[in-house]
This record gives sequence, C-alpha cells and structure tokens, in this order.
Amino acid sequence: MVELVKNNSGKEIEAFLDYGKALVDSALSSLFLEPWAGRFGRLSESMRYSLLAGGKRIRPILSMAALSSVGHDPEPYIPLLLPLELIHTYSLIHDDLPAMDNDDLRRGKPTNHVVFGDATAILAGDALLTYAFTILSDPRYDELSSEKVRLAVVRELSHGSGLAGMVGGQMLDMESEGRRISLEDLEFLHRHKTGALILSSVRIGALLGEAGASEFNSLDQYGESVGVAFQIADDLLDVEGDAATLGKAAQKDNNHLKNTYPALLGIDGAKKMAKEKLEAALDAVSGLGEKADHLRGIARYIIERRN
Amino acid sequence: MVELVKNNSGKEIEAFLDYGKALVDSALSSLFLEPWAGRFGRLSESMRYSLLAGGKRIRPILSMAALSSVGHDPEPYIPLLLPLELIHTYSLIHDDLPAMDNDDLRRGKPTNHVVFGDATAILAGDALLTYAFTILSDPRYDELSSEKVRLAVVRELSHGSGLAGMVGGQMLDMESEGRRISLEDLEFLHRHKTGALILSSVRIGALLGEAGASEFNSLDQYGESVGVAFQIADDLLDVEGDAATLGKAAQKDNNHLKNTYPALLGIDGAKKMAKEKLEAALDAVSGLGEKADHLRGIARYIIERRN
Repeated sequence: MVELVKNNSGKEIEAFLDYGKALVDSALSSLFLEPWAGRFGRLSESMRYSLLAGGKRIRPILSMAALSSVGHDPEPYIPLLLPLELIHTYSLIHDDLPAMDNDDLRRGKPTNHVVFGDATAILAGDALLTYAFTILSDPRYDELSSEKVRLAVVRELSHGSGLAGMVGGQMLDMESEGRRISLEDLEFLHRHKTGALILSSVRIGALLGEAGASEFNSLDQYGESVGVAFQIADDLLDVEGDAATLGKAAQKDNNHLKNTYPALLGIDGAKKMAKEKLEAALDAVSGLGEKADHLRGIARYIIERRN
Repeated sequence: MVELVKNNSGKEIEAFLDYGKALVDSALSSLFLEPWAGRFGRLSESMRYSLLAGGKRIRPILSMAALSSVGHDPEPYIPLLLPLELIHTYSLIHDDLPAMDNDDLRRGKPTNHVVFGDATAILAGDALLTYAFTILSDPRYDELSSEKVRLAVVRELSHGSGLAGMVGGQMLDMESEGRRISLEDLEFLHRHKTGALILSSVRIGALLGEAGASEFNSLDQYGESVGVAFQIADDLLDVEGDAATLGKAAQKDNNHLKNTYPALLGIDGAKKMAKEKLEAALDAVSGLGEKADHLRGIARYIIERRN
C-alpha cells in the first residue's frame, strides 16, 4: 500500500485518492461477469453501466482511510467496501428516474434509464442494492473478517442507507422542495440524505479494523462532521460550478427552489460552516496520530475540491 | 404453538396457516412505529400501507413449517422471518409502478404509487428492501440465533431476491413479454421470478433451525418443487379466476401476451405439471416423518388454493 504520509500535502492525499480509486474501480469492474450473470445479460449490463460510469469512490476510500487509522492495511478489505459503491450507485439510478429528479445526464453520460429504460433502471437499482448484502455475506471472506464483524457491517450499511438514513433523507429532500425550511431541518435532512452513508463508510472501516471503543468514537465524530462538510461543499460547487466541470446542469438546485446551505446561509456563511466542520473533523481524530493523516487529507480535500 | 398435526386434513393446515398469518401480521404491524420513524412520517406510512395490505404471508409460513420439520418451535423466530415479507412487499410495490406493470389495484386496494405517488413508492420499496437486512443484523437477536447463522440468512435472502433470483426473474419476465418463449425458458424465468424467494423461505427456515446436511437437502428439494408449483397454480388461478376473487384484473396476463404455464401447456397440461411438482415436494420430505406435516399441508394447499 501507499506509505502513510507524514507531511500531508495536497499531493500526497491525491496519491492516496488515486490509489484507492484504482483499487476500487478494478474490483468493481470484475463484478457481474460470471457465467451465471450472462443469463441476466441486459440487467447486469445496466448495473455495470452505472457502476463503472466513474466517480471518485470517496465512500470506500473513507473506509480505507479509517482502516489505516486503526493500523490496518486497507487493501485486503477492498471487496467488503464495494457494497458502499453499489448502494451509492443504486441511489443515483433511482434518484435520476423521471418519477424522481428526472435527470438525463450524470457525470457527462446519459443516465441509466435514458439508456436502458425506466423499468430496467428500477430493477438495476434494486439488484445493486440487494447485491451489496450478497457480497458482505459471502463465505469467501470468512477468513478475512469474522461473521460477527460482517453482520455488524450489514447493520451499519442497512441503517445508513435505509429509512433512518439515506432513503429517509431523500424523502425529506423531496418533501421540502418548493418551500423554504429552517437550518435545523436542512441539517437533519442532509445528515440523512448524504451524511448517513458517509458516516457509515467511516464506521464500516472502523468495524472491519476492529477499532477499540475510544478509536471508534473518534472516527464516528469525524464521520459525522465530514458528512455535513461534504454536503455543504456539494451545494457550494453547485452554485459556483458550471456544467462543463460537473457534467450535470449547474445551478439546477436553485432553479427548482431546493433547500441548500448557500441558499439559507449565503455563500460566505456556507463556506464558514464548511470550515468549522473541517476543524471539528480534524479535532475528532487528533488523538490518532500520523495513522489518521489520510483521514485528515480527505477531510481537507472534501472542503477544497473543485468537482 | 399449534400442535403438530397427525392427520393432515385441509382443516388442520388451515389452522396452521391462520396461526402463522396472525403471528406475522401482528409482528409486521409493530414495524416503523418507533419515535424516530415519525420524522420520516410519509415514507414510513407508505411502507406500512403496503406491508399491512393483507396477503397470505406464505413465505414466512413456509419458513415456520421448515423450522417445525427440523424440530423447532417456529414462534420465537417470527421477527427473523419478517424480512421475507418486506422483500416480497417491496417487489410488489416496484412491480406495480407505471414504468413496470402499471397496476392500479392490488388485493382490492389502490396500489402504493396510486396513493402516495411514484417517487414515494420507489423510495418505500427501497427502504423496505433495505430494512430487511437491518432486522437480520439486529443485535437483539444475538441470543436467538448466532451471527454465523444470521449472516447465512442474509446471504440466502439477498441471493434469492437479487440479480440471480427474484429481480433477475422479473427482468426476464419483462423481456419475454409479447413473444412466445420455450417451456425451458419459462421454467428458468419462473424458478427465478417466484421460485427463488419461495425456495429461500424454506431454506431460511432450515438455516435458522440449524438443519443437518441431509435434512437441509430434503428441504431444499421441497422448496424447489413448491416454488414451481406455486407459479403454475398462480397462472391457473389467473386463467380461471375472476376479478372479484383475486382483487386484480383476471386474465391480465393473457391480454398482455405474457408467457404462462397454461399458455404453453394448456390448462390440463399445467394442472398435470402442478400435480407432479406436488408429488416431488412430498417425496422430498418423505424421510422427515410427522414433523414435516405442515410442509405437506402447505404444498397441497398451494396446488389446491382458490385465491
């Protein structure tokens, strides 16, 4: 694996991000190519289309950094981190549907339902979501991670992505469209819609790394802060970005009168809040020493990223 | 629990079915009422609407009968069988969507998307599917069933309901609409679309009951045969039934030029095949003695049911 960095410059975290993305992309690209999947050709093709459409793979990379922070080489755990990308990808497919956000473009490519039709897109999302749990329960990982730990990961992932997590947040987002909500409600919404799966990513790294109670608590607080920071940064990018950089229509959120941090706090207020969350994230892992440098670098990257 | 029956008359299996349904209904009705669920009011309401819209609860009841057949009182295991109904219910919600089968009526009631809108119906399905795994990984069941066993149940459920199971079968069904397929392809389709989750129900009972290898094998064969029989019976009901009995438009399958057993084999041919599958199911569990009487009764009931 990449050496744990001492001087966590931007370049070094970028090397870790590239390293993580390459590992995750490679592992994802081997999914659904088995002979049995051929009988379900169009469905598995549709799943692979969205799964391999790019993306920063920030969720599994956060788990990797959490594993590093508790003294584990993350590389062997990559297969058990793919479920995070499967869940993230299914949520994008379903979100983009005409019945939901009705987006035709994602990362510069036609969305799943545009290519495969709405019905296949719904089923592809369902199958990706379901397969996340097939991976976690695969006996081939019995030696890598105990059944007890992987069942805890099942719990964390299903909680972070379900009714009281990501899906619940998506529902609140939908319900709040067209009306202005309070900052408190906005935070609740985003702590679920985006923050919950980000937090789960960090916690899953901690679970797989069998972190002690104190380490787990630090990582938990880090994940909470980074989850909020991620959404604020996303909102800011949407305001400041342009279609060319993002591969989707910029300022879409504002056109639809969506609730965002810049809309409620102003651009400067949102930037200030993002910085506070970054500080909180860095504080949370201050006791973990150099091993947490990847976590620190990712937190900074999330606030400062330009796409 | 209901006494294991010696003379497995229709009345006695009906008592077991009623008993199982009452237990499952009662356990389902307590879901998503916790205070936290209140913050996601409309989504949890939508989930409960479809979850409590009736149904025979045949999947968890099959698990109960499998548990009985290996000498376990099924009642304590009811919470761990609810995931089967959550998965079955989500699949109905997504199937009924305008982008899929576009059904307005299910069990005599307006379908989920008719009441709550398409977007909420998609999210309610996603959340039900996800929550199935939250239940299985809940530490409150650590004493009832080991992490090892419950992780095996996660695997069985995700496999039976995913790409190589139910969702894959739904995709094949959709792709075969409007063209005649071979009996071999029809069997492959239905072994996945309906059969896989029926088989998983039986296997989950066997897993929870920690069946020995020989018992497991018998139950596996039983589940395979009953899964096919269930679909043939469903097809026959659709041909012979009427809208009043079924609460949905009868003969809909034929109008859409769907592939069914009666369409390929004729009504008499389909009835003959259903009887052969019943015999195979009964044969499979012939070595399990009286403990398997519920399984026998359910197999007969499935072939002979009128709705």
